[in-house]
Parts: sequence; C-alpha cells; structure tokens
Amino acid sequence: MCRWLAYTGSPVLIEEVLYKPEHSLIDQSLHSRLGAETTNGDGFGLGWYDPDAKTPAVFHSIEPAWNDRNLREVASHVESPLFLAHIRASSGTAVQQTNCHPFRYGKWLWVHNGLVRDFHLVKRDLALAVDESLYPYIEGSADSETLFYLALTFGLEDDPPAAVERMVGFVEEVGRRHGIEHPIQMTIGTTNGKTLWAFRYSSERDSRTLFYSTDMRTVREMYSDRPRLQEVSDETRIIVSEPLVDLPGAWNEVPESSYGVVQEGEDELHEFRPVYSRNGS
Amino acid sequence: MCRWLAYTGSPVLIEEVLYKPEHSLIDQSLHSRLGAETTNGDGFGLGWYDPDAKTPAVFHSIEPAWNDRNLREVASHVESPLFLAHIRASSGTAVQQTNCHPFRYGKWLWVHNGLVRDFHLVKRDLALAVDESLYPYIEGSADSETLFYLALTFGLEDDPPAAVERMVGFVEEVGRRHGIEHPIQMTIGTTNGKTLWAFRYSSERDSRTLFYSTDMRTVREMYSDRPRLQEVSDETRIIVSEPLVDLPGAWNEVPESSYGVVQEGEDELHEFRPVYSRNGS
Amino acid sequence: MCRWLAYTGSPVLIEEVLYKPEHSLIDQSLHSRLGAETTNGDGFGLGWYDPDAKTPAVFHSIEPAWNDRNLREVASHVESPLFLAHIRASSGTAVQQTNCHPFRYGKWLWVHNGLVRDFHLVKRDLALAVDESLYPYIEGSADSETLFYLALTFGLEDDPPAAVERMVGFVEEVGRRHGIEHPIQMTIGTTNGKTLWAFRYSSERDSRTLFYSTDMRTVREMYSDRPRLQEVSDETRIIVSEPLVDLPGAWNEVPESSYGVVQEGEDELHEFRPVYSRNGS
Amino acid sequence: MCRWLAYTGSPVLIEEVLYKPEHSLIDQSLHSRLGAETTNGDGFGLGWYDPDAKTPAVFHSIEPAWNDRNLREVASHVESPLFLAHIRASSGTAVQQTNCHPFRYGKWLWVHNGLVRDFHLVKRDLALAVDESLYPYIEGSADSETLFYLALTFGLEDDPPAAVERMVGFVEEVGRRHGIEHPIQMTIGTTNGKTLWAFRYSSERDSRTLFYSTDMRTVREMYSDRPRLQEVSDETRIIVSEPLVDLPGAWNEVPESSYGVVQEGEDELHEFRPVYSRNGS
Repeated sequence: MCRWLAYTGSPVLIEEVLYKPEHSLIDQSLHSRLGAETTNGDGFGLGWYDPDAKTPAVFHSIEPAWNDRNLREVASHVESPLFLAHIRASSGTAVQQTNCHPFRYGKWLWVHNGLVRDFHLVKRDLALAVDESLYPYIEGSADSETLFYLALTFGLEDDPPAAVERMVGFVEEVGRRHGIEHPIQMTIGTTNGKTLWAFRYSSERDSRTLFYSTDMRTVREMYSDRPRLQEVSDETRIIVSEPLVDLPGAWNEVPESSYGVVQEGEDELHEFRPVYSRNGS
Repeated sequence: MCRWLAYTGSPVLIEEVLYKPEHSLIDQSLHSRLGAETTNGDGFGLGWYDPDAKTPAVFHSIEPAWNDRNLREVASHVESPLFLAHIRASSGTAVQQTNCHPFRYGKWLWVHNGLVRDFHLVKRDLALAVDESLYPYIEGSADSETLFYLALTFGLEDDPPAAVERMVGFVEEVGRRHGIEHPIQMTIGTTNGKTLWAFRYSSERDSRTLFYSTDMRTVREMYSDRPRLQEVSDETRIIVSEPLVDLPGAWNEVPESSYGVVQEGEDELHEFRPVYSRNGS
Repeated sequence: MCRWLAYTGSPVLIEEVLYKPEHSLIDQSLHSRLGAETTNGDGFGLGWYDPDAKTPAVFHSIEPAWNDRNLREVASHVESPLFLAHIRASSGTAVQQTNCHPFRYGKWLWVHNGLVRDFHLVKRDLALAVDESLYPYIEGSADSETLFYLALTFGLEDDPPAAVERMVGFVEEVGRRHGIEHPIQMTIGTTNGKTLWAFRYSSERDSRTLFYSTDMRTVREMYSDRPRLQEVSDETRIIVSEPLVDLPGAWNEVPESSYGVVQEGEDELHEFRPVYSRNGS
Repeated sequence: MCRWLAYTGSPVLIEEVLYKPEHSLIDQSLHSRLGAETTNGDGFGLGWYDPDAKTPAVFHSIEPAWNDRNLREVASHVESPLFLAHIRASSGTAVQQTNCHPFRYGKWLWVHNGLVRDFHLVKRDLALAVDESLYPYIEGSADSETLFYLALTFGLEDDPPAAVERMVGFVEEVGRRHGIEHPIQMTIGTTNGKTLWAFRYSSERDSRTLFYSTDMRTVREMYSDRPRLQEVSDETRIIVSEPLVDLPGAWNEVPESSYGVVQEGEDELHEFRPVYSRNGS
C-alpha cells in the first residue's frame, strides 16, 4: 500500500536518489507499477542521518510527495550517508503527519509497507502489549507505528531480527485469536544509523516486493550521467519497494520470508521465521 | 488552553454567532482575554446538527481559525439549531485534524477546555479503561478524546452527568495513583443533538471560566443590529468559555464544580461531584 | 488536466452525485480514465448555491479529494439545487487554495479543464487585458483564473457565450503572436446561479471530453438504488468531464467546438466560434 | 505586520539562533512585543545558504511557526553561515506558501516587514512596471513579492541600495497618484549569499523597528550557555525586527530612513533616500 527506499553508503545529495532516477520514488508516488495501489498520495516522509546529530532528522508531510516543494528543497540541499524515504497510500487510518513514516525513536528509524489486517479488531491487544514506558510515545493511529513500538518492546535495540520475528509472531497470534487468516503483510526497513535491516514477510507467504541494488558498479552504471554518484564507495546500497530504473542485473529481489543486513563488512541475507510464544499458535 | 462555544435554539446562520459578535470566538482565537493562553491557533473545529441527518457534521482544520476561508464559507452558508465550535491551543499533543474538537461518536459531540495533567504518565491506564468496543474509534492522541471515550464507557449515552462524574472520578484516581496532585482541569460541552450538557470542574477547584447567556431577551439586545437574531425563540441559549460581548447582565458564570442542562422545558443547574470507585481514593 | 462536474435541478444532498456513483468524481481523482492525467490529486473545490445566500459558497482544499474528510462532511450534510465540483491536476502552477476551482466573482462560478499553453509566455499580456477594476480580484496564479477574469472583462455577466468567444479569440491572438501553435485547450463550466453554460473547445480542435446526462429518466435509472434521486425533476442535468457510470444511452458527448446552455425551459446546444479583434488573426 | 531575522557569520546550527534565545523568533510568532500585531501565525519561511549549492534553499509553510515540526527538524539538523527567517501576520492577502517569505530569485533572498497601503489600488500599476522577463516568476499575491520583483527590475542584482531606493520612489509615486498619503511601510532584508543589506523606511518616517547585534563579543555573552556560539567569528551579525534577548548594549537600532550593509570587511550604515523619476513627485 506504500513504497519505500533506503540508501546507505557514501554521502550523496538526497535528490540524486530520491528524484533523479527515471522511475524514482517521487515518480512512484504518482505511478507505482508493482504496488497494491498505483497512487501513493497520502503523505510521505524522509528521515536522514548526519555525522553530528545524535538523532536522525525526520520530515513528514500530508501533501502528496510529487508536489511538495519543501521536500524538493530539503532533498536538493541536504547530503546524507544514510536515509529512508516513504510514500503512503493509507489503508484506512487518517492522513496526518503522525501517521507518516519513517517513525523515529531515539536513533532508530522505521518504515513499513503492507498492513495489519482488520487492525481495528486487534489494535487494542497490540497496544496493550507495548511496554508501559514506550506507550506514551505512540503519537498516531497507524498500524505501522504500533508494529514499531511492539518491535521496540521485543528488543529491537538489542537484536533487531529477533525482535521483529517475535513481533510478527505476536501479531499473528493475536490476529488468529480474532479469526484473521492472514494477520500481517509487510516489508520493513529499520536502522540505528549504522546498520540497516530489511524484512520481507507476510502471513500468506505472498509478500510485497522488495529489491536491493547488487553492487555499486551497477549503481554507477545506472546513474552514468550523474558524476557525483560515480564516486560512491563499493559498499553503497539501495533497498526499494520497486526498482528505480529498468536495468538488467541491477536489482536483486529480497526472497520471500527473509531479511537482509547491510553493514560494514559483508552484507547478510537470512531466512525470516516468526517466533511464537510458548503457549502460542 | 482552548475556547469553545455552544449554541442551541432557533436555527441561525452559524456566522451570526461565530463571527459577528464584537469578541467572537474567531476573535478569541487571536486575542483571548480569560484563557490560560492568549492565542488559540492550533486548529479548530465546528460540529453542527441539521434536522435531516442522522449524525452531526464536523469540520476540523489545523489552520488557525482566524484565517481559514473554508470555515468562513461554511459558517456563512449553513443554518443550524444546534452547534459547537472549538479553537485549540495545544497543551503538547500534535496539531492534527484527529486532535481537533468537537469529537464525534454516533450522534454525540464533545468539546473540552483544560487538560489531563501529566497525560503521558496516565495515558495508558486511561486508554485501557476504555471499553473494548469503543477503543478502535480513538483516532487521535489528545487527552480530550480519551476523556470522551471514557465518558462513553461510563454510560454517557444513558446518563451524561453520571457518566462524566464517574469519568472524572476515575481520572482523578488514576492520576493520584501516579502522584499527580490535581489530575484534571476542565470545562466540557456535550450533546446528543437535543439536550446540551455543560460541565465546569477541576481537581484544584479553580476551573477554567464558563458562561451561559441569561435569556433571549438579553441575547436580542446583544445583537440589536442583527435582524435575524431578533426572531430567535426564548429558549435559545449560548454557552461560552468567555463572553462574546461586553453587556452587563447578559452572561452568568457557570459556578465552580457544577453543570448545566439546556433542554426543552426548564433548564437546570446542579452541583458536580466526581464519583470514585468503591476501592478508590 | 482536471475533471469537473456540474449539477443543476432538484435539490439533492451533494454526496449523492459527488461520491455515490460507481465512477464518481472522487473516484476519478484517483483513477481518471479519459483524462490527460490519471491522478487528479492537486487539490479540489466545490461551489454550491442555496436559495437564501446572495453569493454561492466555495470550499477549496489542497489535499487530494479522495481523502479530504471535510469535503465528505460538507457533501453529506448540504443540499443544493446547483453545484460545481472540480478536481485538479496541476499543469505547473502552485498547489494552493487560490488556484483551486471553482473561481468565484459575485454570484458567478467558473471551472476549467485544460490549459493555456506556454502560459508563462503570455501571462503578462493576458493579465494586462483584464479590466482595471477586476485586476485586484485575481488571487492565484492559475491560467484558469486569468481566463475567468478575461471573460468577465469581455462581458460574461451580460452575454456569457459572446464573452467566452471573445476571450478565447483574444487568448489565441496573444498566443499566436508569441509563436504558440495551439494556445488554448478547454472545457469550461460557468453559472450565475440560474443558468449553466458548458463550453468545449481547443485551438487544435481536439478538445478534452465533456458529457451531459440525456434526461432525468435516464439519471433515475442510473441511480435506481438511490431513493432520493427518484424524485428529481425532469429538468435536472449533470455535466461531467467523464461519465460517472457506465450506462448505455445515459450520456451524450458535447460535440467538438460547441457549447450548451442548461436553463429553465428548453436546453440549447450551439456551435462555438472564437471571436477575433478586427486587426486580429 | 511580520517579524524577521537574518544571520550571517560563522556556520551555526540554525536552531541555535532561531529557537534557543529567550525571546526567539519562534517565541515572537506567539508573543511579539514591538510588532503591529502580537501574533504572527500566518505562515513562515526560512531560507539558507550552504557552500555547495548554487541557489539557497527555502522552506515555506502556512502553519504557525510555533507548532511546525518540520521547521524544528530542519533547524536542528542544518548548519548554515547565512540564513533569513520570517514569520508572517497577513495584511489581507491569502495565507499560502507562495506568499511566504523569503522570496527567492536565483541566488537572491528577500524578506519584508510592513505593507504597501491600499495595495489593491496600486497592484496593477506596480505589476505592470515589473520587467517582462521577470513577470512570470511572480507566483503569489503578496505586496512584498511585488516589491521584490520591482527591485529586481530596478537593478537589485547590480546595486541593491540604488535599486531599492528607486523601487520605493516608484511605489510612492504610484501610491500618491492614487491618493494614498503614506504608500509604503517597510523593513527589508536582502542578500546574494555574500553580502546582506537591511533597509528601514516608511513614507510617514515612522518605520517598523529593526535592530542589529553590536559585535560578536556581545553575542557570545548573550549565548554564554551555548558552547558552539562561543566559537563564532567577530564578523558574525544578527539583524532582527525585535531583539532576541534583553541584554543591555547587545542591540543597536537601525536608525529611521537608513540601511546597513553587512559584508566582509567593515560594515556600513547609510541614509536611505527614495529616488523619484524625473517627472515624479
């Protein structure tokens, strides 16, 4: 229902990645090809890190991304080595800044594409499971934000894959208790400003698409007309809901039910297995 | 922290009450005299009833009321026998439409001036006490909305004064359990489209101001230059956070710790006494 | 680049026409079929007449129509015998309320689909031709608003078809002086609250689509599941950029280079011929 | 009717100047002391320069500055050696992003506090005097933007003081031709990214206030609790509509009918004399 993008690597002007590619995220806000919805006009968000600040900056807007002038200004004047952008197609909850991704807690950012099915049925049970100390930080009404605070409750800051696996297991248990066949559908991107984790999973094992750039030689080719991108390091990576350009070999699909870790040193790709409570389903 | 107005009686063009008086609610949005804040620019709302519709209409905006053109258009073209308007000065929660008053549930509307002190400390306990069937209808993050759903949980639709007294008792009990000396400060207006209830109370017994128009002879004098208002019935009443015009004898203050009922037949004024649970404070 | 709708006839709740049909204008804001753009998410507007007010009401918003809650509230609580609605896909000018249609002057409303080509080249010449007394009323930057004030300058209030034919002739003359091959593309709806005029024309004689409902028997069939619409008079008409429902025989296309007049008594359909100045092209 | 601030000197995090002082510009948006209006809630803008970009960035919003979260995010993550900020109290024209200051043309920024009196009477004459090549860049409806384009027409890019003196002379001539006694009231800040000019003038010689920081030793004292500001260079200057802190000796008033130049090397202060056309008043 949404589209997102994560960039990590050599610092670049955000617009180089967000606006310049042929089928950029901004273009996808009007004309998504692979999404459940073709239009993603229910607000957007951008979160970026810079070396000095303790917490990332977030910029949220309820205007469609394609005509937001402030986004264009920020993107064309801010350089960053790590940023997440998200365009929203609401699955029902209000269009307001507090429902825009990325969600932020301390130095963490979180974006989500997908939905918690029949969220109104399970919202209360999920909210009650959020740690008491975290509960007051929930500002909006989006399912995606509740997933973030559940993951934080389950230890996101210590072991992200384990926390997300427990979070998903919990959501599935609660959903099934309410008679929901396929409780969750998701791709998720999250980062602490150093490492980036990207998850692809759905209860029905038919998850929203997710791609990662193969390696930077390919990215350099993709942007052959952008001199500044020719200088980015080999470790630079882009993860996207759908490819930014049509270029054979440039993108790998994140496999069904798996997650990737983009970090200093070797990147990793693992199977994703929801963890259920002992007395769970 | 806010200002509100309720009108009930003969149908009038909303702007006659909302814009035309010398110290109208719109003027109060820029220059409140009696409020805790002089500027009430963090959004506004209008809710109105018409004879045909099953539920009242609500119009919410995050723009300051004083420069919202759509509000002016609606107010100058819609006639109503019963409406509530509210201008907001946020006590910290986000400025978004879902935090704008009046809140609506079925045929009920609800406006609140004041706050739940240290709301972040008690928010979770209060939210958990909301009936499971009502919980998913909470859309925003404002303390005022939580109070509304608590009142609904405690029977607002059956016996509004009793429900609000139980709600306030509960909020005070929860607050004191968290070490908060004066948990609640409030004036509240609520209506089912026929009867209007107005409450004034605070834990410290030093509540925000609230006034009601004495009788319609006075209101007619107040608006002597408005021919359409000369025809309103004797039962017409206006309730406001602060007077709309300076006119000796036009306004009575709702006494500390009391509530009024504006209805067909005789209006009523009663003492307001929070109700505590048996094992409460 | 936009879509619009005009309704005139028996008073109806606006939502019956605006939201309820299968391929309603609100649906077209997300999924236009016949438009130059599939998404019309750059703001919208609604203008309506009621018996009492001297001037029509207008409601403008820069949010996409499909998720604007206030529009839904107004449309589901206001009845009107004559209203115009418009959804915008900007052809470059800013997304702001003052660029939203319908534009209003006194009791007149004006909606436009199409564009003045290379508007930046001719904007000054067109603005200078606006009558001095009207010039200060131009609030936005849209080509459509300038067309409206030119038509007013050329006598819209006295003889709308003649004024629009002179306006178009003038725009074509100015455009061609600047080397623009096809200066104008348009469908236009305008009304004084009693009569409704609908124009379809383009310099290249390949104009944006425009349709009118044949007669009310058909409309009643179209909305067979809407009891309130079964009672509308035979003179009720709907004019739209693209059909609201797929129903054989329900819609007639306004022919290329022509205009219609919907009025008490017999409706009319005429050829549209731009009028050029004596020393013009 | 507005308040503005200009900073030039050592690069600082924008929030240090915009939010942190006791009576910051953000505080002035709610509680101006010296302005014609106490509330400046009709939008705001921020324009900043960075070493790499060819043109400055601008961020405009129609929300009140005091509750705009995006402004807070940008200000707390962007460092700049030169920026202008403006909070608006509309003198009648629409609240929309295209009416927000700073206005930008190429590498130039422009902020204005004050008004063109009876602007609706003179708007057309002023607009017609704007150079044909510049006219299409006018996007909004504010008098301040027209003043900017007139100044550009009169040579702002070559000799700013001379251009502003001619602009003011022209506005006064046009105004007096329309019977307006005191056509213009202004403080203006403008910059090309290197030098900053600040003007104070009004036809009635009773101009809105304008102050500049004396020297950086004083500024360092003002912000003694802000370590990062202790390191700014001696050439750093702040110019403001009203002082940011109460500190004896920290601020000098720009004298009536004068302008200052903040530049590398010695700053300058000169008399401001409108220049009239030969056949002018």
